[in-house]
Amino acid sequence: MGRRVSIAEAAQLLRSHDKILILCHRSPDGDTLGSGYGLLHTLQALGKTARVDCADVIAERYSYMFPQEVSDFEPEYVVAVDVADPKLLGANEELWGDKVDLCIDHHGSNRDYAANLLLEADSAAACEVLYLVAKELGVEITPLIADCFYTGIATDTGCFRYSNTSVRTHRIAAELMELGCHFQKINQLMFETKSRSQLAVEAEAMATLEYHYSDRCAMITLTRDMVELNGASDDETEGLAALPRQIEGVWIGVTIKQMKDRTGYKFSLRSTEEADASAIAAKLGGGGHARAAGCSVKGDLLFARQAVLTAIAEHMGWEEEKVD
Amino acid sequence: MGRRVSIAEAAQLLRSHDKILILCHRSPDGDTLGSGYGLLHTLQALGKTARVDCADVIAERYSYMFPQEVSDFEPEYVVAVDVADPKLLGANEELWGDKVDLCIDHHGSNRDYAANLLLEADSAAACEVLYLVAKELGVEITPLIADCFYTGIATDTGCFRYSNTSVRTHRIAAELMELGCHFQKINQLMFETKSRSQLAVEAEAMATLEYHYSDRCAMITLTRDMVELNGASDDETEGLAALPRQIEGVWIGVTIKQMKDRTGYKFSLRSTEEADASAIAAKLGGGGHARAAGCSVKGDLLFARQAVLTAIAEHMGWEEEKVD
Repeated sequence: MGRRVSIAEAAQLLRSHDKILILCHRSPDGDTLGSGYGLLHTLQALGKTARVDCADVIAERYSYMFPQEVSDFEPEYVVAVDVADPKLLGANEELWGDKVDLCIDHHGSNRDYAANLLLEADSAAACEVLYLVAKELGVEITPLIADCFYTGIATDTGCFRYSNTSVRTHRIAAELMELGCHFQKINQLMFETKSRSQLAVEAEAMATLEYHYSDRCAMITLTRDMVELNGASDDETEGLAALPRQIEGVWIGVTIKQMKDRTGYKFSLRSTEEADASAIAAKLGGGGHARAAGCSVKGDLLFARQAVLTAIAEHMGWEEEKVD
Repeated sequence: MGRRVSIAEAAQLLRSHDKILILCHRSPDGDTLGSGYGLLHTLQALGKTARVDCADVIAERYSYMFPQEVSDFEPEYVVAVDVADPKLLGANEELWGDKVDLCIDHHGSNRDYAANLLLEADSAAACEVLYLVAKELGVEITPLIADCFYTGIATDTGCFRYSNTSVRTHRIAAELMELGCHFQKINQLMFETKSRSQLAVEAEAMATLEYHYSDRCAMITLTRDMVELNGASDDETEGLAALPRQIEGVWIGVTIKQMKDRTGYKFSLRSTEEADASAIAAKLGGGGHARAAGCSVKGDLLFARQAVLTAIAEHMGWEEEKVD
């Protein structure tokens, strides 16, 4: 159990240390990178030596956040940003997992592994918290720093669309725009650019769309061949899980994804209020939340499609449909 | 030429009249409807008789904005909201086009057809202006009124993604959330719901995706059969124009759309800074802006595809590719 610290205390800890290593989580996203690089530039503005480290490769589209060379030094203070669990440090866990001096985070599930923890679980993004820390440190928030924090806020809220968006989120976005953040360029990079492989996989998966139960259920299938022959990464297929449920009139959306070892299929279930996705998943040994749940079966695709249709019929009290 | 009025003057005009008819533009979208119904509920809170009228059918997804019955009366004052040109009143133009007492708008291209014009061309949405008018009128802004204004702001900015989003846009969104707007429900309805026909058309169009000129050009084709056999409306295919250019590495995105009478094809061209869409369109007798332009040709699809590829090659100085 670490010490819980306030924004002012976190700022004081940073002010009184130097040679600061900032750790991001593995599979780095806009929020951990925006937090890390926003803090880096803030500390450098205070004249400190600092660097960001991440166990995994950072996608090219984030490169506007780190225009400078990386400095090499022996760290004297270690800060983790947007990292709820030391496991999420990936390859950095062994080296630094039990040596984090300060963690700044917004996940209610934070494992409290750092010596000091600044946690604001009602923040939409860790970048909201880091922005408040940067303001507390009194440095001039440059357009580059504003770009970093805007990136994390925009990506973690789906550009202000998700329910985690708060009144404060919009107010901070307004301030970051006044500080000169390049919100238009960032929104275009984050929300209006798709890779060829992502597009190809999405198109192939959407072509498998099928409706059942008087169109209350929509289902798409993603095979390993679709992913691998298109050269897509597994992240690039994550958006597909939400798609079938978004269709007008659909109560239960199912995305069937073949397992990597091709021995069976995973189901992502999404539902409106009319159905309980977790109850359906439970019938196949899975679980989750009422609106989003998951489960899996071993076997071929025909078996998998029938298994989920049967579970849905049982849960809803509908007459079972047979797949062809 | 009408009189230019301020927000305070517009509020005073509304305060001093009753039996107010509010006109929205044809093909009604979230901004004209949010403006119209937000103003309606504001005027009703002042004890006034008012109603909203629109020449075209309003899509079901906007129905949360008008929970009450429509009152019938002979209008004594006519207000047009988000209507830049009397032509955009559609079937209402003949009856009311030259009788608009007050127009509240945000289009720089407003034709100045009303007796009084409140125009804020730097507002992201007409709803931003209407919100300021409602505040000026001093009524309590209920969650229902806030829902109306939030809808227009969110839809006209692509949920705070487009370049028209300003510091004030975010500040107003924050205020509307404080006033109790149901932003989560609205975002879901506006941005996370697709009709079956829309999805089917998009999938078929995306299946035609072809790359040219070392993948710097991406092109999709939409035939009348795809639209009509899927029972889609023409609005539902509008989003497709932006898609090819969003692909990583693509400089020129082309969406080819068959004309309704099937005698030829229209091109929507989108480009990054590396190409000038309007210069390409000009080669085929069209025009537009540097990043977004359009043109058309008569003839069959093979001819159309070749025509645009030739225009691109000429503009870019590339060796021409032949379609198969």
